[in-house]
Amino acid sequence: MMNDLPRNRFYYELLKRSIVPGETGVLEIGAGSGLLSMMAAQLGAQWVVAVEGSPEMCRLAQENIKANNFETKIKVLNMISTDLTLKHLPRRPDILVSEIFGTLLLGESALDYIQDIRERLLKPDTKIIPQLGVQYAVLIECPTLESICSVDTWNGLNLSHVNSLKDTASCVFTKKYGFRMSSVPFKRVSEPIRVLDIDFAATKQGFAPLERELHVKAIEDGVAHAMLLYWEARDGDEVMSTAPWDTLDNFPRDMQWGQALQLIDGGHHSIPSDLHVRRGEEYRFVCCTSDDHVILQFNYEPRDATTIEDLDDIEAAIEEGEGDEEESRQHAAAAATTDEVNKEDDK
Amino acid sequence: MMNDLPRNRFYYELLKRSIVPGETGVLEIGAGSGLLSMMAAQLGAQWVVAVEGSPEMCRLAQENIKANNFETKIKVLNMISTDLTLKHLPRRPDILVSEIFGTLLLGESALDYIQDIRERLLKPDTKIIPQLGVQYAVLIECPTLESICSVDTWNGLNLSHVNSLKDTASCVFTKKYGFRMSSVPFKRVSEPIRVLDIDFAATKQGFAPLERELHVKAIEDGVAHAMLLYWEARDGDEVMSTAPWDTLDNFPRDMQWGQALQLIDGGHHSIPSDLHVRRGEEYRFVCCTSDDHVILQFNYEPRDATTIEDLDDIEAAIEEGEGDEEESRQHAAAAATTDEVNKEDDK
Repeated sequence: MMNDLPRNRFYYELLKRSIVPGETGVLEIGAGSGLLSMMAAQLGAQWVVAVEGSPEMCRLAQENIKANNFETKIKVLNMISTDLTLKHLPRRPDILVSEIFGTLLLGESALDYIQDIRERLLKPDTKIIPQLGVQYAVLIECPTLESICSVDTWNGLNLSHVNSLKDTASCVFTKKYGFRMSSVPFKRVSEPIRVLDIDFAATKQGFAPLERELHVKAIEDGVAHAMLLYWEARDGDEVMSTAPWDTLDNFPRDMQWGQALQLIDGGHHSIPSDLHVRRGEEYRFVCCTSDDHVILQFNYEPRDATTIEDLDDIEAAIEEGEGDEEESRQHAAAAATTDEVNKEDDK
Repeated sequence: MMNDLPRNRFYYELLKRSIVPGETGVLEIGAGSGLLSMMAAQLGAQWVVAVEGSPEMCRLAQENIKANNFETKIKVLNMISTDLTLKHLPRRPDILVSEIFGTLLLGESALDYIQDIRERLLKPDTKIIPQLGVQYAVLIECPTLESICSVDTWNGLNLSHVNSLKDTASCVFTKKYGFRMSSVPFKRVSEPIRVLDIDFAATKQGFAPLERELHVKAIEDGVAHAMLLYWEARDGDEVMSTAPWDTLDNFPRDMQWGQALQLIDGGHHSIPSDLHVRRGEEYRFVCCTSDDHVILQFNYEPRDATTIEDLDDIEAAIEEGEGDEEESRQHAAAAATTDEVNKEDDK
C-alpha cells in the first residue's frame, strides 16, 4: 500500500543506511509496482533488480520506472523469485529487500521466499531488509466484537442456541469481518506472546514445533473474547507494526493488513462459552501451525484438560491395544482439533 | 443480526400494530433463526409459519422455538418460499413479514420473493412488513477512501500509473473493503437520489428501466470520490436505515449490511481522474441495473458525452448500415459498459 507513509519511511530509512551510492547492488522480491526498487535507485544504488510474479504488476512497475527515468538503473523481471538464478543478476546483491508480509507475518510465505534466495543467491554479508519479525498474540476483551459473535436474549426470548454457529476454531482477518480493530474499543487482558520470532537472515523453516503449549498470563480481570494477532517487523530502531494501537492514524495499513482474531471457547461444551480471566493467573493454550507457518490456531485448554504429553501417552497406549473407551474419545477429540487447523484458510 | 437492537424494535413495533392476539396468522419468509416469528408468537399471533431455506438455520430456529415454548404456535418449514403453497398454511396469512435485505436493498432478491408470495398466497388486505423501501445513492467526498484507492507521488517519485488499477466500474461493499463507513470522515456533496422506490405491497419486477439517466445536483463544492449507496425500509413512522450517519452506534448493522461504494471516474482517459463538482450544478450519470435489480452501477457522463438517446440513434443507424467508424466505436463503448454491470458481483 503505497500511501502507508510510515511504511515508506521505514523502508527508505533502512535502504539509506545500507546503500553506498554507486556501489550497492539491490535485489527486491515481490516488487509489486516497484516503489522500494525506485527508492533504492533514488538513493544511488549501482543497480537494482526487481522480481515480480504478476505480469500486470510488472507492466505497472515498468511504467512507474519509466516515468521516473530509472530505466537504466532498474531491471524488472516477471518471474517467481524461486526461479531467479545468478545469471539474472549482475552479481550477488549487497541488499535483499522485500515487503511480502500478510495479515499474519508469514501469511504470504515471506520466510520461504527469503530463505530460498538467502541460501542460493546471497553473500554471507548481504543485508536483508527488514531483518527481524515477530508474530504476536494477545488476549483481548472486546464487547463490540462480542456483539456480532454471540447472542443471549432479546425482550425475554432465549436466543442462545444461535451461539452454536460461533466459530472459535478459525483465525479470521479483521478485513473479512469488515471493520478496523483500531476503530473499536478493547482492552488487552494478557501479556503479549511472541508466537513466532524470525530473523530473516538466519531462521530456517522447521524452526518452530507444529503444536506446542503456551502459558498466557492475565494482566487484568476480564473476559478473554478473542486472541488478537499482530506483528512487528524491526531493524535497528526502525519498527513497522500492525498492532491496532499503532495504526490509529494509518488507514492504508489497516486496509492492507489489519489484524487476525480468533474467538475463544472457554469450555468443552457443545456451545462455546466465555473464558473469564483473573489478573496474575496463567491460562494454557495449544498453538497449532501449518508446516510453513502460514496458518496459526489457538485452542484454550481448560485446567482439567489432558496435556499434549498425556495425549501422546494415550495414543501410544491405544496403539498398544491398551486404550479404554474414554481414552479413545479424548484421542478422537485431539485429532479433530488438528483437522480444524487444516480446514481454516481466511486468506 | 439479532444484536441489532433498533432493527428488532422496528419489527416488534410493526408486528405489534398489526397483530390481533388470538386472531392473526403470520407468515415469515427467510426466517433464519426465527426471531421475527418468535416476536409474532410473543405478541399473541394465532399461528406462525416460518419458512427458511437452510437446513442448519431451520434446526437452530427449532431449538430457539423449543427453548421459548412456542412449538405449538410456530411451524418451521425447511423450503424456499417459492415452493410454499396454500396447503402448507392454515389459511392465507394476515401478515407477511421478512427481513431479506442485502447491502443493496434488493441485493438478496427481496422483491422477487415477496412479489411471488404476494401474487400466489396473500389476501388483498394482508399486511406486508415492512411495506416500503428506498435505495438511495449520494455523491461523497472522502479523502480516507481516496487514500486507499489512488496514488500520486511519494518523496518526489511519480507513482500515478498505479491508478490504472483503480476500479471505477464496480459497486463494492464496505464489508469487502474492510472498514465501517460510519468510522471515517466524509461529506455529502450532492442531494441523495432515490434510485429504487419500492412498495412491497404493489411494486412488480420490471418497474424500473435497466438503463437511465440521472441528474445529480451538487450541494457543495468538492471532489466526488464515490457514489455511496444505502437504503431505508419504512412503514408509517418506523424507519430502518443503513445510512452511515444512522449506524454510528449500531456496529451489528454495519457488520450485517454496511453500504456500497462506487468510485467515480471524472473523465474519459485511460487512467481514472477526479470529478470536481460545484454547488448548484447538475452532473449526468447513467444508472445501469440487472433485470432483477440485484446489481447497480453508475457511470458518470462528462458534459460533452453522447446521451442514451444519441446511442439509440447510433444503434439504429448501425443496424440500417449507415454507421460510420466513429459511431461504431461509441456503440462498442456503450456495450462494454453494459457487460461490466453483469460481471460485477460483490455479494
